[in-house]
Amino acid sequence: MGSGLYFFLKRIRRGWFFLTIRAIIFDAYGTLFDVHSVSERCEQFFPGMGSAISSRWRQKQLEYTWLRSLMGRYEDFWCVTRDALVFTLKEFELNSNEKIRTTILNEYLALNPYAEVANALEELKDRKLAILSNGSPDMLNTVVRNADLSEVFTDVISVDELTIYKPSMDVYQLGVAKLGVKKEEALFVTSNPWDAAGAKSFGFQVCWINRLNLKFDELGVQPDVIIHSLDDLVAVINNSQE
Amino acid sequence: MGSGLYFFLKRIRRGWFFLTIRAIIFDAYGTLFDVHSVSERCEQFFPGMGSAISSRWRQKQLEYTWLRSLMGRYEDFWCVTRDALVFTLKEFELNSNEKIRTTILNEYLALNPYAEVANALEELKDRKLAILSNGSPDMLNTVVRNADLSEVFTDVISVDELTIYKPSMDVYQLGVAKLGVKKEEALFVTSNPWDAAGAKSFGFQVCWINRLNLKFDELGVQPDVIIHSLDDLVAVINNSQE
Repeated sequence: MGSGLYFFLKRIRRGWFFLTIRAIIFDAYGTLFDVHSVSERCEQFFPGMGSAISSRWRQKQLEYTWLRSLMGRYEDFWCVTRDALVFTLKEFELNSNEKIRTTILNEYLALNPYAEVANALEELKDRKLAILSNGSPDMLNTVVRNADLSEVFTDVISVDELTIYKPSMDVYQLGVAKLGVKKEEALFVTSNPWDAAGAKSFGFQVCWINRLNLKFDELGVQPDVIIHSLDDLVAVINNSQE
Repeated sequence: MGSGLYFFLKRIRRGWFFLTIRAIIFDAYGTLFDVHSVSERCEQFFPGMGSAISSRWRQKQLEYTWLRSLMGRYEDFWCVTRDALVFTLKEFELNSNEKIRTTILNEYLALNPYAEVANALEELKDRKLAILSNGSPDMLNTVVRNADLSEVFTDVISVDELTIYKPSMDVYQLGVAKLGVKKEEALFVTSNPWDAAGAKSFGFQVCWINRLNLKFDELGVQPDVIIHSLDDLVAVINNSQE
């Protein structure tokens, strides 16, 4: 039994249950889709550096979403992702050209879903399933289609129409508005601690999928449930709603 | 001649000058005060880890300011700095107690100014000199007093009254309001690329003091001048306003 399940069952013993869950809203990158699968492509162009580039790139990509949101200088996630790659290669003093960068960037359109994703979503499909992501509409639609998941989601929601990124409360509110559910009736699932903290602050029920064995951030809120893969989520929800 | 000066003189040759500078507004941490001087205290409690702790701690401290600003969950910089330290020690799986953490945290109140700061400020004092910082009022007043710089600044401005952190435009606007100058008449000096980008977006003239030989961030704006120490700033301003 994973520690997430244990955590959940402890809560049940304390008389705590999920309220009725009418919708499950998933973060995309790092939650359903493995962003570090781009590191193989980086490795191809910069041998020995794939993992370092991929991890620094991800960090700068997130930083730029937060900074641009605070500065009121929104550019879409494709642009921010490209800029973060440009910075990362510059910082590592690696020569590149437009063609190399575009080839690496295009990996974002063909990210692999984690192994258990398709089956887990199939088991959860009695509820509304949606994606709420920083990705631009084009990026999200392409990656979902390439992973053969188009039929699974009722809504694929991008922050783009708000021109602000997570964890702005406006983003989580957009999810509620698009799905037509109360926030207490939605379970938000993400692998990103800062995203889980944002969603919890907003008022969602929150499941943190701790794929990488991270420590949760010290932001004054905690997720309701911690799991390690989407398989655990199926078990948690089935147990809580019998 | 530093590359910053070279950059500046190239601009002069192209017919570009600073407008009249009536105020110089400094970022505090990393710009006037060396935040990594805390690493020695960390080293004392966690031998061999001082530099790693100090650098990760700084990164999480900044992340938490951006995330809390976006989430609308402001806590003051002392609290955010403490939380970032707690996270960092947890991530590194280092045991600590309240007393150790408080001892390390208190180093923030006695940060060393960089070696050239006092002399450079003395040479610039014909203009209004101010600090505009994420720090809480208590933190800023204490560190300025401990460094014997209280008489130098007309204003020591904290974001605290706005309950939002840099690079929100509201913060830079607060600087203008407190000092009673037009933004074009103020030179904003910071070592943090993201802070320089924010200040430039707002409309300040911006000097990036690149103390650590970083690459500038890819956020769609550039500083007006790049220098490597405050001594360069004295030369740049004296040359431009003769």
